[in-house]
Amino acid sequence: MNLYTSKTEATAKRAFEAAGNGDEALVRHLIDHSFQVEDCDEEGNSLLHYAVKGKNQELVAFLVERCSLDPTWSNQNMVTPYDLAKGTPIEAYFKTVCGFGLEDCYRNPVQRGMHPDPSIVRVGEDYYMVNSSFIYFPGIPISHSRDLVHWNVIGYAVTDPKWSEENLGKLEGGRGFWAPDISYHNGRFYICATLRQNDDAPYIQTQMVTSSEFPQGPYETPVVHNVLGIDPSIFTDDDGKRYMLVNRGARIMEISEDGKEILSEPSLIWYGHSGHAPEGPHLLKKDGYYYCFLAEGGTGKGHMITVARSRNLFGPYEPCPFNPILHQKDEMGVIQCCGHGKPVQTADGRWFVVYLCSRLIDSKWGMLGRETCLDEITWTLEGWPVINQGKGPSYMAPLPFPQKTGAITDIPNQEVWLTPRTRDEKRIWEEEDGTILIRGDKKDLCEKDCRSLLVKCQPDFKFDVEFVMDLPEEENEEFTSDAGVTLYYDENTYIKFGVTKDEVFLTEYIDNAYVRTEKKPYAFHGPVTFRVETDGLKRTFLFNNSFLWQWTDVTSICSEGLVKGKRFTGAMYGVYVNGSNLLRWRQHSKIQ
Amino acid sequence: MNLYTSKTEATAKRAFEAAGNGDEALVRHLIDHSFQVEDCDEEGNSLLHYAVKGKNQELVAFLVERCSLDPTWSNQNMVTPYDLAKGTPIEAYFKTVCGFGLEDCYRNPVQRGMHPDPSIVRVGEDYYMVNSSFIYFPGIPISHSRDLVHWNVIGYAVTDPKWSEENLGKLEGGRGFWAPDISYHNGRFYICATLRQNDDAPYIQTQMVTSSEFPQGPYETPVVHNVLGIDPSIFTDDDGKRYMLVNRGARIMEISEDGKEILSEPSLIWYGHSGHAPEGPHLLKKDGYYYCFLAEGGTGKGHMITVARSRNLFGPYEPCPFNPILHQKDEMGVIQCCGHGKPVQTADGRWFVVYLCSRLIDSKWGMLGRETCLDEITWTLEGWPVINQGKGPSYMAPLPFPQKTGAITDIPNQEVWLTPRTRDEKRIWEEEDGTILIRGDKKDLCEKDCRSLLVKCQPDFKFDVEFVMDLPEEENEEFTSDAGVTLYYDENTYIKFGVTKDEVFLTEYIDNAYVRTEKKPYAFHGPVTFRVETDGLKRTFLFNNSFLWQWTDVTSICSEGLVKGKRFTGAMYGVYVNGSNLLRWRQHSKIQ
Repeated sequence: MNLYTSKTEATAKRAFEAAGNGDEALVRHLIDHSFQVEDCDEEGNSLLHYAVKGKNQELVAFLVERCSLDPTWSNQNMVTPYDLAKGTPIEAYFKTVCGFGLEDCYRNPVQRGMHPDPSIVRVGEDYYMVNSSFIYFPGIPISHSRDLVHWNVIGYAVTDPKWSEENLGKLEGGRGFWAPDISYHNGRFYICATLRQNDDAPYIQTQMVTSSEFPQGPYETPVVHNVLGIDPSIFTDDDGKRYMLVNRGARIMEISEDGKEILSEPSLIWYGHSGHAPEGPHLLKKDGYYYCFLAEGGTGKGHMITVARSRNLFGPYEPCPFNPILHQKDEMGVIQCCGHGKPVQTADGRWFVVYLCSRLIDSKWGMLGRETCLDEITWTLEGWPVINQGKGPSYMAPLPFPQKTGAITDIPNQEVWLTPRTRDEKRIWEEEDGTILIRGDKKDLCEKDCRSLLVKCQPDFKFDVEFVMDLPEEENEEFTSDAGVTLYYDENTYIKFGVTKDEVFLTEYIDNAYVRTEKKPYAFHGPVTFRVETDGLKRTFLFNNSFLWQWTDVTSICSEGLVKGKRFTGAMYGVYVNGSNLLRWRQHSKIQ
Repeated sequence: MNLYTSKTEATAKRAFEAAGNGDEALVRHLIDHSFQVEDCDEEGNSLLHYAVKGKNQELVAFLVERCSLDPTWSNQNMVTPYDLAKGTPIEAYFKTVCGFGLEDCYRNPVQRGMHPDPSIVRVGEDYYMVNSSFIYFPGIPISHSRDLVHWNVIGYAVTDPKWSEENLGKLEGGRGFWAPDISYHNGRFYICATLRQNDDAPYIQTQMVTSSEFPQGPYETPVVHNVLGIDPSIFTDDDGKRYMLVNRGARIMEISEDGKEILSEPSLIWYGHSGHAPEGPHLLKKDGYYYCFLAEGGTGKGHMITVARSRNLFGPYEPCPFNPILHQKDEMGVIQCCGHGKPVQTADGRWFVVYLCSRLIDSKWGMLGRETCLDEITWTLEGWPVINQGKGPSYMAPLPFPQKTGAITDIPNQEVWLTPRTRDEKRIWEEEDGTILIRGDKKDLCEKDCRSLLVKCQPDFKFDVEFVMDLPEEENEEFTSDAGVTLYYDENTYIKFGVTKDEVFLTEYIDNAYVRTEKKPYAFHGPVTFRVETDGLKRTFLFNNSFLWQWTDVTSICSEGLVKGKRFTGAMYGVYVNGSNLLRWRQHSKIQ
């Protein structure tokens, strides 16, 4: 779809109005002679969105069956024509043409907020996913699902604060663990990832491997291989030999059974389809072919998934004639930048792929970082994989498994608060009831060795969060810090909404300076409430239940908000202390 | 492929140099860690072009088999790595991996210079093609081939100057016959085309139909149907019922056996894949499916071929999951803007498609208009067509038929000089030996009713042409005209290189004025020689074998050279008289 241009706007508006009125004859006349069916309005509503509102089922059927307009195509607010048809006779028609009911589908992305570079493995009826965690501790979250749609964090691959301090302590934001892979072999789960160092390191890219008997861990102390490349994954061949793949392209090297030794030099088996930024290599074997999947085109709007296959592990590989097998070609698609995925087979022999995407505010601002989508893979008779019937990312798709009450939730969510680089457990602790305690380390958030903050990924574009902050009375100390809530990207860009002993303030840090600040006098004396209401680029700041400020242009905590270093993460929110006080927070309301 | 950017230039040049030196280790190192294999140089040479020059066959094989670099990928001068390998041991390697020898292939475009919107039909072992002719007379050239690669014009569908004067006489440049279709039914050849009128006509689009017992004609006086739409084609179903399709999308209407009557209202069967500018509908039936082919995306860089199929003629049609089945995604491809095609089956059951393309000078200037390419279609096991293995347009491909001496040339080329709109046969004639005689009609080339010129399509980017012009002595009249050679786009943009009685001059007309003029004194007295040497945007003008002028920026005779009206044709060259003299030309040298 495309936003109508000034040249086509009048015709488009006429067609939208006619569709909204159910005027089939006029809509058909305009389609025959002037209206471009690709045109949508500023909110991304297609002609089919309007036609559903017009309630003319014959017109709706004409648009679906003759004009290829898709009932599941989402406007910019994630609303589809199918959603609009709910409760009307058109809902039943859409159920017939789509093959699934509104209650029997899932929506992409399935993992929202920062969940880039997914890798997945199935063991029995359980699916496990890992995502990049960059500099955040604990490192590399492991999610679990039984239906591929609902995911709970069950553990982390890197949980030793000392190891993390030694290995991540000095890394700049956006470095750290990139593109992990999870696999299963002989009763053990293997997780490998690139450990991206600072640019002045002897090896700027190294590969870490760890394993555990249990998916949730604990995982062994990682081994780090000094091998250049990114996006390692582990493949075990039928003869039991094990291999690690790294980019650029798919370069293969033999590894020991336990992954702790590299037995051969990396050797290129396939560079990819486009010649541009080939990464994320994954191998699978099926029906006598080795299939090599790559992410190409860079992790922006050119991103894609490609595939090639060979009868021989070491190639040569024959590229799929339908490459890229996943690419968002639709400029107005609310899900963009699709690529970097890994296929997984269900116990009953079907195939799915998890892959990364970005949802952009105003087609530009990637606030949530990269998220994880799910789509079905079918295979052509020649044996080539087709993702979502070649349509690009789906917005709605049938649930892979019928909904089973309870089945997906028997492992409760173990997601924890994160600290950049490592956690100083003497300085930060959480109580049973969720109360957070942080003792300041006299570092501000712009300092890489600041450890006096806790953050979580922003879960979606709209959410509200409220914390009550207090100076524990038993401490009986003077309040000399600044402390409060942070909206955080990394040490280069963040917002602080906090108090000092005599002020409440809001300040934004970009690159190397605080660039704008609001403040009001306030004598701190006991519990205060911070509330931040989030809607796209807008933030509303309330203090002790009173409106204080609103900012409408919070782009600095988007990946595109600054050109510096590696901006591959997403917006976080959390609490911090800059000073030496011990402070206590309770999160009042869960995310809404 | 992509031109290297300033950011990647140093690495690319290092890789190119290493490849040119046959230094496999360094090339592999750069590919592993920094060089983007998509990068090519300003002339469009890929790393494989350089590696062939480096003569290291192992490196060449590595680039082909591991990096998917294509021996048949053309640089901006239509030179492929395979061409560069000629006479070296690498030629044999390329023959193995490509499956054809250098002597057994053809090059696209197969029809060069203005040959847009091709349609094709096979009768026995003969193939016939028609292309758009716009305002030029005679209208709609019919080409013949026995091998799909070598084509000769054998006739024209519209040859009656009186009919043409009545129907095309007042049309603006770029109007006239658009996107003809040729088909064969019960012993007759049918040609239909849009007759695009001026924008102030009651029907701005009308559809003309004619037929003949013989492919070369003569064709009946056309019937013109007042039906809006463009790109008509005729389809005969198994039950003998006949249909005409027109855009937008594929709209179908039943027609009479002879095509002279329209029996039903047009009804949309498929709007297409992209929602943008769906046109060029063609139906074919194969293995129980009706396949509907469309051209979409507009005739620029977004152009494409798409397909959908149905068990029922009237649909609904199921779009191919691999749409678009033809699209030039390669920014550096020398063949761009591919789309608008028609499939044809060979007598031995193979399939090919002819389609239009543009070759652009500096990625921008479409001087030759749109040309015609050929590529093979294969079918997936599910029954979807795949063009050139999904690679976009081919630059070199195996000849469809072994070369048979003589077989393709038994119908000699009947291509004639063209006149805008119609020919006044009392004013223009050609003698047996090719001598041209034109009596001026006191109209300049910017006047739509000027008939005192003859033109042909510019055949390629590089060519030289030389005419000797004379005032026939027997006329014994004073020379009062300006006359000479023209480089012509339409009445809105052209160049004249001519003489008056006392000057030789060169002048360029754009939009509504002569915008630049060169002149030198010259007393006209008998035969003069005009020579124009053409190389891309450069023109060198010689007069009586002496260099006079050179222009290096002849963009006004490109489609993009002016925004006015319909610039869908291409650069022409020819001769003209502006005045009342009778003048005689002989073309000295054929195109070189």
